Amino acid sequence: MTDLSEKMHKPETVCIFGTGDFGRSLGLRLLQSGYNVVYGSRGPKNSLLLPKGSKVMTHAEAACEARVVFVAVQREHYGFLSSLASGLEGKVLVDVSNNLRRGLYPESNAEYLSRLVPGATVVKAFNTISAWALQSGGLDANRQVLLCGDRSDAKQQLMDIAQSLGFTAVDRGSLRAAADLEDLPLQLFPLWRLPLNIAICLTAFIFFYALTRDVIYERVTNGKDITFRIMVSLANKAFPIVSLVMLSFCYLPGALAGFLQLYNGTKYRRFPDWLDRWMLCRKQLGLLALAFGFLHVLYTLVIPIRYYVRYRINVYTISLVKDNKTYEFDNMAAWRYDSYYSMGILGFGLFVLLGITSLPSVSNSLNWREFRFVQSKLGYITLLLCTVHTFLYAYMLSLVVPCVVLILKLILITPCVDSKVTRIRQGWERQGKTSANGRDTKTNQPLMA
Amino acid sequence: MTDLSEKMHKPETVCIFGTGDFGRSLGLRLLQSGYNVVYGSRGPKNSLLLPKGSKVMTHAEAACEARVVFVAVQREHYGFLSSLASGLEGKVLVDVSNNLRRGLYPESNAEYLSRLVPGATVVKAFNTISAWALQSGGLDANRQVLLCGDRSDAKQQLMDIAQSLGFTAVDRGSLRAAADLEDLPLQLFPLWRLPLNIAICLTAFIFFYALTRDVIYERVTNGKDITFRIMVSLANKAFPIVSLVMLSFCYLPGALAGFLQLYNGTKYRRFPDWLDRWMLCRKQLGLLALAFGFLHVLYTLVIPIRYYVRYRINVYTISLVKDNKTYEFDNMAAWRYDSYYSMGILGFGLFVLLGITSLPSVSNSLNWREFRFVQSKLGYITLLLCTVHTFLYAYMLSLVVPCVVLILKLILITPCVDSKVTRIRQGWERQGKTSANGRDTKTNQPLMA
Amino acid sequence: MTDLSEKMHKPETVCIFGTGDFGRSLGLRLLQSGYNVVYGSRGPKNSLLLPKGSKVMTHAEAACEARVVFVAVQREHYGFLSSLASGLEGKVLVDVSNNLRRGLYPESNAEYLSRLVPGATVVKAFNTISAWALQSGGLDANRQVLLCGDRSDAKQQLMDIAQSLGFTAVDRGSLRAAADLEDLPLQLFPLWRLPLNIAICLTAFIFFYALTRDVIYERVTNGKDITFRIMVSLANKAFPIVSLVMLSFCYLPGALAGFLQLYNGTKYRRFPDWLDRWMLCRKQLGLLALAFGFLHVLYTLVIPIRYYVRYRINVYTISLVKDNKTYEFDNMAAWRYDSYYSMGILGFGLFVLLGITSLPSVSNSLNWREFRFVQSKLGYITLLLCTVHTFLYAYMLSLVVPCVVLILKLILITPCVDSKVTRIRQGWERQGKTSANGRDTKTNQPLMA
Repeated sequence: MTDLSEKMHKPETVCIFGTGDFGRSLGLRLLQSGYNVVYGSRGPKNSLLLPKGSKVMTHAEAACEARVVFVAVQREHYGFLSSLASGLEGKVLVDVSNNLRRGLYPESNAEYLSRLVPGATVVKAFNTISAWALQSGGLDANRQVLLCGDRSDAKQQLMDIAQSLGFTAVDRGSLRAAADLEDLPLQLFPLWRLPLNIAICLTAFIFFYALTRDVIYERVTNGKDITFRIMVSLANKAFPIVSLVMLSFCYLPGALAGFLQLYNGTKYRRFPDWLDRWMLCRKQLGLLALAFGFLHVLYTLVIPIRYYVRYRINVYTISLVKDNKTYEFDNMAAWRYDSYYSMGILGFGLFVLLGITSLPSVSNSLNWREFRFVQSKLGYITLLLCTVHTFLYAYMLSLVVPCVVLILKLILITPCVDSKVTRIRQGWERQGKTSANGRDTKTNQPLMA
Repeated sequence: MTDLSEKMHKPETVCIFGTGDFGRSLGLRLLQSGYNVVYGSRGPKNSLLLPKGSKVMTHAEAACEARVVFVAVQREHYGFLSSLASGLEGKVLVDVSNNLRRGLYPESNAEYLSRLVPGATVVKAFNTISAWALQSGGLDANRQVLLCGDRSDAKQQLMDIAQSLGFTAVDRGSLRAAADLEDLPLQLFPLWRLPLNIAICLTAFIFFYALTRDVIYERVTNGKDITFRIMVSLANKAFPIVSLVMLSFCYLPGALAGFLQLYNGTKYRRFPDWLDRWMLCRKQLGLLALAFGFLHVLYTLVIPIRYYVRYRINVYTISLVKDNKTYEFDNMAAWRYDSYYSMGILGFGLFVLLGITSLPSVSNSLNWREFRFVQSKLGYITLLLCTVHTFLYAYMLSLVVPCVVLILKLILITPCVDSKVTRIRQGWERQGKTSANGRDTKTNQPLMA
Repeated sequence: MTDLSEKMHKPETVCIFGTGDFGRSLGLRLLQSGYNVVYGSRGPKNSLLLPKGSKVMTHAEAACEARVVFVAVQREHYGFLSSLASGLEGKVLVDVSNNLRRGLYPESNAEYLSRLVPGATVVKAFNTISAWALQSGGLDANRQVLLCGDRSDAKQQLMDIAQSLGFTAVDRGSLRAAADLEDLPLQLFPLWRLPLNIAICLTAFIFFYALTRDVIYERVTNGKDITFRIMVSLANKAFPIVSLVMLSFCYLPGALAGFLQLYNGTKYRRFPDWLDRWMLCRKQLGLLALAFGFLHVLYTLVIPIRYYVRYRINVYTISLVKDNKTYEFDNMAAWRYDSYYSMGILGFGLFVLLGITSLPSVSNSLNWREFRFVQSKLGYITLLLCTVHTFLYAYMLSLVVPCVVLILKLILITPCVDSKVTRIRQGWERQGKTSANGRDTKTNQPLMA
């Protein structure tokens, strides 16, 4: 079995400074992946909490044992490392730290570490991986270990370790990128912010408009107290409008981009910043629209069990009896109401389907053609059904945006325009410009990420 | 640090012909994974669009720098490669191309490339990976790089590259398989086609049958215009029937396969083709049944807010008052209706649960025993609940298929039959046949994939 | 190309004993990943079922060809291996077997194999991977190959193979862990058991309590037969209460843990066993609560189409007409009902959102801060909305648990308590204890896994 052990580059020894949650999880995972693990600790006697199979030494001793030293210590405690500087000469120091808040320090933790121990090569890595992901094996999206550093051989070592641990390593450039990497775990739904703000503002506007018109005005002129309507009626007025407008906002930037590409005659010119930002949060706009649509469905289905509605029907029936009148059946109204409900149900059904296909695990199992078919073709059919549904109910003002989007799309899919757009998206450029595909490109603007 | 750099087989240099979207994304990803990247371009001056850190040269110069050359150029432009043939001698040429439509060319792009540059080894790879998946790191199902080629050392090199980039490489055989690989990104829900066609035909048939019987016949004989019923009443007649029949179709092939295995006395005999195809799209049949069931639920819940229903109730109440009659409470009807709703709700609840467990990320987190429990046991309970629900409403004709499936299953789970099927599925074979498990197999038919 | 082939450690030859489903799938996958595959079989002539490119020999011949031998044979047939003992000397034997039931044998299959062939090194691996996962490339959660064995070089070889096949290898220690690994595929939702039992007991209790009070008592005292209520009314009484109580149970252990940490003054003291177990099944408790909430929503929406409800409304209207009374509009009731519905809808909407974010693929795409925000902040808002919703309906008894949880949380988020808990969770310890982060820890209890 000699020739086998020669082939193996492991068991390599890795050193970890710090015996906190992250240090322990990392050590356990390294051991499970075939590495030797040495912990550096101030009080090397206590090893009860540490994973079985690891050794504990003083920091200086531990650093001697390995080429790669993980610094799993909070930034405030980095001070002690400067006293170890000579022992860390030539080592690869891995900064895995995160801060509690943004903007706590002027420079990134990794750059600070690099200043403290100038003789070592600092790599920022693993800070986007949680102790939990290390323990559970890092599945799915958490599988990416982002790293950055100034020396590519040091980064390569970390990439090998990350790969052995079952992660995918992605190099994000020089140590200057460390500030960005340290920012990532502190983010709170950055792409949802704009869509959420739009949704909240729209909802508030429509709600207060309807409150003034339907409730307060009624109170002032007729003296009737119908404030109870706030809870269901007003909500069910605001939610569907917001849903439809958000769904239109989801498809509007794509249509605008098509026209812009037609106008520019190339796909290699960058879109204006606001359009880029808008394009990036289309999925979030669509999902919020779905959420509001879902609430609208529930608020609508709850109508017949409302106290007020039952009261009204009862009063109406009694009044018909007393006045000895009959309810004249209006065939037109039956058609209109039933169409209204049917369009709404089919639109909502398709909308739910769009929502399901935007789940990461589902959209990842589609090929590009299938994804485009669902999100574009089915998406526009959903918008069309929901627009017709709203039209039958006659909230006319809310139809402006969806109609604009539908008309723009209609223009884009007329055969002559469509063939031009398709050619442009395949790399064709108008005269004076040559395609970038295997040939020159004269556009001098960087590509949209 | 000398011994470290010796250990590392990278940075290896990789060459990319073509500076389009895919070429740029691939180059960026290679750079991020520690490779050197050289682009081959006709006009090597322009490098503004290319990822930072890469070099641009003429095609001939670039080809000299690397052993592996990615050809990220459209097939129509392959022509220039024949002039570079001498410089590409002995190189590994990677064909990453896709076509716009099927059947555009008689031979696959990769085989065409191999004919153009006979001195190089052509490997088809990465064509199922989109530029976007390269940029985002290729998570989940997109993680597979399918490749094929005639020389295993060349394929091994591509496998190593794919693995470094965070993908899983799967060898699909010789270059003849290239046509199949090029076909994959052009597919549009191949497994959904048959179930969708069944669903559409069934819906159309039931819809037109009900249209004739309920609406047109009524019009002709009584002269009453009830066409408005098309929108909700007819839809809510077709959808539940289609849903139940599709759900039965989802479980029927499994039952048939069980009987076939019993009859054959082995699991090592191949099923007939139609059954194989049917078995493969069971998941799609079930999900379509769920979609139709979902629409049925919405159409049912919308009933009390329909104009027509309110009218009818009103008229009935007034008629009772006028005729001075009372609504006689029918205990039996109360039982029947409430059971009908309750069975429907519980069935739909279980059905939604089945749908959720068939999401890729959920089904992947179950072990085999759990998956079988959910999809088989819970599935049959769902079918039973939905059948009873339909029975209470008395759409008798639609009960034929589900009852057949339930009876077949009932037979299969009787202890004596069940024990036989279980033994067969564990590899047991009837006399004259010996199990394939560690022993001979005399069946000479290939295994179902 | 000489230096290329030297670099490559593959094609290595791997031997597989057994030509059943698993052996064939494993062989195919190994071939696709660039290995040579040799099958050992009693009747080496039959190779029609085996993957193309593999060879078949007698067991003894096949074993000579490779260093690693996969034993894909059922435990009952292990006997023949002892006769091959000399040929297997020094080989790595991989036990991939699973049992049909737990507790069939006193020792694990791998340990039994090790006793049979003492000259070989046994590694338990791949038993948690199904033949299907091998064929489809092993995506997502199925990507983990758990392995254990007594020699680390042998384990390292298996890790390399697992990685080449696109899996992530996790070392679970010595061969003694084999019993645990063999237990994993036989588990049936172990984490769901406790929550399901709680849900079933609660439902049964509430159901029978309501049955006695509402139906049987009514029958005995008034002689009225209202048994039909069992199907909808009683179900819709039990489900919402169970849902709310289960949701509270989902958040109660977190609050208790906070108080316990406050009391202990450290996060490094282990929680009592019952709290640990409770914490581990919080997700399952929450999802069951959502399922019951979903049923409650459907049962509520079905109310207006129930026969009994229509009858009651009709009778009431007629009685009003006859007695010449009018329905007095109660503004307070309108407010109360509408608030009740609105709180319920918003609470359910948030609840569905919580459910969606607990899907593996969604929760994996969130960073730690986002996950905590959704599951903790939004979770408590959901609980609050659902509690208010229930309060408006006045099921007073069911409010005890949720109110306790809300009060505990309220105490925990008061600024002075919150800052203490936050410090403790960041590693701070009360006097006499020093943090484990780069310093000593005096707690001598192992960390909660």
